[in-house]
Amino acid sequence: MRIGFLGPHATFTEQALLTLPESRGAELVPLPGAPAVLAAVRDGSVDAGCVPIENTVEGAVPPVLDGLVADPPLVIAREARIAVRFCLMGRPGTTRDAIRSVASHGHGIAQTRGWLAEHLPAAEVRVSSSTAEAAAQAARGEVDAAVAAPLAATQHGLEVLADDIADNAGAVTRFVLLTRPGPPPAPTGWDRTTLAATTTNRPGTLLGLLTEIAVRGIDLTRIESRPVKDRHAEYWFHLDCSGHVADPAMGEALAALHRRCDRLIYLGSFPRSDPAPDVPAAGVGSPVAALGVATADDYAASERWLAAVRRGADT
Amino acid sequence: MRIGFLGPHATFTEQALLTLPESRGAELVPLPGAPAVLAAVRDGSVDAGCVPIENTVEGAVPPVLDGLVADPPLVIAREARIAVRFCLMGRPGTTRDAIRSVASHGHGIAQTRGWLAEHLPAAEVRVSSSTAEAAAQAARGEVDAAVAAPLAATQHGLEVLADDIADNAGAVTRFVLLTRPGPPPAPTGWDRTTLAATTTNRPGTLLGLLTEIAVRGIDLTRIESRPVKDRHAEYWFHLDCSGHVADPAMGEALAALHRRCDRLIYLGSFPRSDPAPDVPAAGVGSPVAALGVATADDYAASERWLAAVRRGADT
Amino acid sequence: MRIGFLGPHATFTEQALLTLPESRGAELVPLPGAPAVLAAVRDGSVDAGCVPIENTVEGAVPPVLDGLVADPPLVIAREARIAVRFCLMGRPGTTRDAIRSVASHGHGIAQTRGWLAEHLPAAEVRVSSSTAEAAAQAARGEVDAAVAAPLAATQHGLEVLADDIADNAGAVTRFVLLTRPGPPPAPTGWDRTTLAATTTNRPGTLLGLLTEIAVRGIDLTRIESRPVKDRHAEYWFHLDCSGHVADPAMGEALAALHRRCDRLIYLGSFPRSDPAPDVPAAGVGSPVAALGVATADDYAASERWLAAVRRGADT
Amino acid sequence: MRIGFLGPHATFTEQALLTLPESRGAELVPLPGAPAVLAAVRDGSVDAGCVPIENTVEGAVPPVLDGLVADPPLVIAREARIAVRFCLMGRPGTTRDAIRSVASHGHGIAQTRGWLAEHLPAAEVRVSSSTAEAAAQAARGEVDAAVAAPLAATQHGLEVLADDIADNAGAVTRFVLLTRPGPPPAPTGWDRTTLAATTTNRPGTLLGLLTEIAVRGIDLTRIESRPVKDRHAEYWFHLDCSGHVADPAMGEALAALHRRCDRLIYLGSFPRSDPAPDVPAAGVGSPVAALGVATADDYAASERWLAAVRRGADT
Repeated sequence: MRIGFLGPHATFTEQALLTLPESRGAELVPLPGAPAVLAAVRDGSVDAGCVPIENTVEGAVPPVLDGLVADPPLVIAREARIAVRFCLMGRPGTTRDAIRSVASHGHGIAQTRGWLAEHLPAAEVRVSSSTAEAAAQAARGEVDAAVAAPLAATQHGLEVLADDIADNAGAVTRFVLLTRPGPPPAPTGWDRTTLAATTTNRPGTLLGLLTEIAVRGIDLTRIESRPVKDRHAEYWFHLDCSGHVADPAMGEALAALHRRCDRLIYLGSFPRSDPAPDVPAAGVGSPVAALGVATADDYAASERWLAAVRRGADT
Repeated sequence: MRIGFLGPHATFTEQALLTLPESRGAELVPLPGAPAVLAAVRDGSVDAGCVPIENTVEGAVPPVLDGLVADPPLVIAREARIAVRFCLMGRPGTTRDAIRSVASHGHGIAQTRGWLAEHLPAAEVRVSSSTAEAAAQAARGEVDAAVAAPLAATQHGLEVLADDIADNAGAVTRFVLLTRPGPPPAPTGWDRTTLAATTTNRPGTLLGLLTEIAVRGIDLTRIESRPVKDRHAEYWFHLDCSGHVADPAMGEALAALHRRCDRLIYLGSFPRSDPAPDVPAAGVGSPVAALGVATADDYAASERWLAAVRRGADT
Repeated sequence: MRIGFLGPHATFTEQALLTLPESRGAELVPLPGAPAVLAAVRDGSVDAGCVPIENTVEGAVPPVLDGLVADPPLVIAREARIAVRFCLMGRPGTTRDAIRSVASHGHGIAQTRGWLAEHLPAAEVRVSSSTAEAAAQAARGEVDAAVAAPLAATQHGLEVLADDIADNAGAVTRFVLLTRPGPPPAPTGWDRTTLAATTTNRPGTLLGLLTEIAVRGIDLTRIESRPVKDRHAEYWFHLDCSGHVADPAMGEALAALHRRCDRLIYLGSFPRSDPAPDVPAAGVGSPVAALGVATADDYAASERWLAAVRRGADT
Repeated sequence: MRIGFLGPHATFTEQALLTLPESRGAELVPLPGAPAVLAAVRDGSVDAGCVPIENTVEGAVPPVLDGLVADPPLVIAREARIAVRFCLMGRPGTTRDAIRSVASHGHGIAQTRGWLAEHLPAAEVRVSSSTAEAAAQAARGEVDAAVAAPLAATQHGLEVLADDIADNAGAVTRFVLLTRPGPPPAPTGWDRTTLAATTTNRPGTLLGLLTEIAVRGIDLTRIESRPVKDRHAEYWFHLDCSGHVADPAMGEALAALHRRCDRLIYLGSFPRSDPAPDVPAAGVGSPVAALGVATADDYAASERWLAAVRRGADT
């Protein structure tokens, strides 16, 4: 088992990957950038790939969302979330006054934008393919400093010049493990299903999609829109729903969306990494779905009833 | 084949029944009142029964609606509609001044209420089990006059004292042919499905039911509420929908209602007796269902897609 | 103050009227039938009128619903509900075997249909303008027996031949006090608003109406459909909502319905006669309206905010 | 009149600003980055500010969205859209082989990511505060090349090394002119209203928001979600609607959202920069709102009706 990840070593992505059971005994392959990870999964040079998909501060990771709707298809087999902590680091002896260039991944730059503007207003900011690569660049002297994870300082012999410099404390990043299509992990009762959909750009089509989901008692946990390449004013809607493709309610909702959307891409069902509430709240209180999500038994009973009605049996 | 109908002979119901193909070669059995017709179908003493269900002036026929939700179950196999025309009739030589009592079926009384109040304000009005029976009562001298169909005057040797006395011209009554449960007639593309449903009496439950129907592109053509016997503030909702139980969209809607309702009674799928529009409008423009009702092919395609997704195939 | 009611004396309607504060010191005027009561209010010969509108067993009273949507307009100023109890009564010495004719109001006949069919299968059933009139007819010897309230037996010197003969025990009838349009009674916090609406007969229009109500957190407590006279396949929808026309949410909903409906008739806001729940449930849990009905303060705050936004103030 | 813009001179933003009538005779002030533009408008050092908000390829501009929901409030007074065309440029004599560093604005980098990966795989990519600044850096020799607008090559004496290198042709960027709160421009009949909203994170709340908009016949043209800083799993929803805050339908929808949302920020009503359709389609066909958006006259009529009903007048 070979698993690619957004490298080099010491990225937050590698940290996240190491928390997943799939990483045990696997060969972990650092790759230069999320598009490279997706490409490697697609061409079979790795069996799976780990990339960040969403951050509580910066939001979705656009190239990952856009890469997921390309061909051939990929699915999410697992997710992990870890807290992110950014440090400013340089070669030993570097002083802040002497920093004229600082590198980081675009996400790291975005999350420390305010701090950098305040403390290093004159420094030029360079975008690297990862925070770990930025640390490597600092170690090689290509930049004066890097914004990266504490681990990267250790690994590259850098000195931490300022710790915990994110503009917003407590950021958490969610990572996903991607594979080529295959049977999903078994339902656990606390799962997520990820979709991407486009519709004709007419009034009310988005409300129509959300009603298909809500009427079946399914909780929508996230929605993002991304422009459809080359088609003005059309969007991919990236949707996260609570539930598993094996659930009858989810299956019926997916089939309904498939009929209603111009394109619907199924991106996987997998265990949720956020803690389940004591009382699962999925769908309860959802508008339209006043009675909560129906169970597999409810569906089986209603299907038996329908079959009896159709053949004219006494029900 | 024995078919019961709301008798005696010469009722509007018999007129309607004679327009149905099922009446050819069948033994037509007049029965005293709609409850008697339903009971005869239930106990097997007839194979089918014909009763009025709805009138464009007077609305639904309450004892028929209430009888349909009783046990054991019945289904509608066919419908017919005929224009109703009421005459005042009496024994030859009767003058209006001499009329002190007039009989009709409750529906006939209701539809000529204004005319009777204006022209026969002093007459006592008696309810009969049918308009034809009222004519028979007039012929026997039990009442001075009857409000009934023109045919009843001919049949009972009565004289028409006033023609076309309905308060509202152009009334049409819809009749249904009931049977014990059995396979429905084949879909024709212009069918009706009739249901009765109860829900817990909570805010929004009716909206929830209607959304289940609308989201699947199904057109609701009629809704009636009738109190549930012995349960205050609870209602049976009688629903007519455009479409057939064999349609995938209707099947999915029925299964969804079955899960959501306290009780759901399927009352049959059968060809509509009103003329189909040139361009079938079913569901087009329906709120929520912006794309109209999905066809069987659409459903089959979405089911194949879902099955592929569930087994992990490349879609 | 003169108040007409569905007479003669001793009807259930008079019983209900006597429970209303408006009846104290008023002249109570028995009138022959609900249409006569509505007409007397309209022409000013009485100041108010009391009629039954709905029964837990038989449902709505069609001529009252139909009369309410006629011109000139009327409004409901108050409602009352009383339990109904039907007795079979005849002149002293009458035996059941001897009964060949029995009279009652159409509602009384409907609610004792089963009992009469079982115990007096051979008797002819006559419709009277009220149960009290039926008792008077029995007292005058025009019929052998009447189905009426116990009070009617006392008043007309009749003997109760069978008590509590309703097919369904525990029936409750709701009565309304009608006036010409005028300011509604002040809100009490537990009020009802009654409406009648027609829409163009297109798919989804009923769902649209109900969504206008639900989105504003208003609970729909009753819906009836009645055919629009002379217009096939069009219906008046009679709606009861929880709340008062003075409530901002109700006002906004009414204005929205007024824009959306072909015709919208406001039929009054008045205190509810059913007991309020310990915790008012209005709108809570309503689909779409996830947050319950907004209060007048909520509306005032949002209106102030909107006014500030429109004039370009810093909000 | 002083107008700040995302500088330096020769940016796409300046190009867009020059198409707006407000730029005529105004002093145009280049500022280093979108946050600086927003800050300058807020602190009064400029009267208005121009920044990009959305691109058909890259989607929304996160720091602008995030900046708009900060305090004190800002509003959009105008929008413009221009096609974007990226060139690779360097000092005269530069050959592609010699390029080891290339600078651009983050947006420019994102839109030429594929081209750079293919043609300059070894070059380090630096993020600049604008494409024009990147060109200036190239002119100063701080980087070997820049990705910028053709105009920037002319202005900085650079040579175009590759033209039209965007990964997706035909990209259009929308820019907004921001001011401190003030009266909006007059309605033109083809306007846009921009909002940002947060709700409690419960199932169905997003559907509730969208229903408030749809039920009033308002067309939602864009939705973006951005995480609420420091609050996990909560989102700002950025919404663009067709219509003007002065429209009654929009006013009522805004007031309703204000009652329903945790926070609702009004971000301005202004003329749309995309061409109006021949037949304005706003709201027609919208789910729930089967009748399209009501006009100001419709609202005025319904308000007069409501006022009459409330005071008890004969309507």
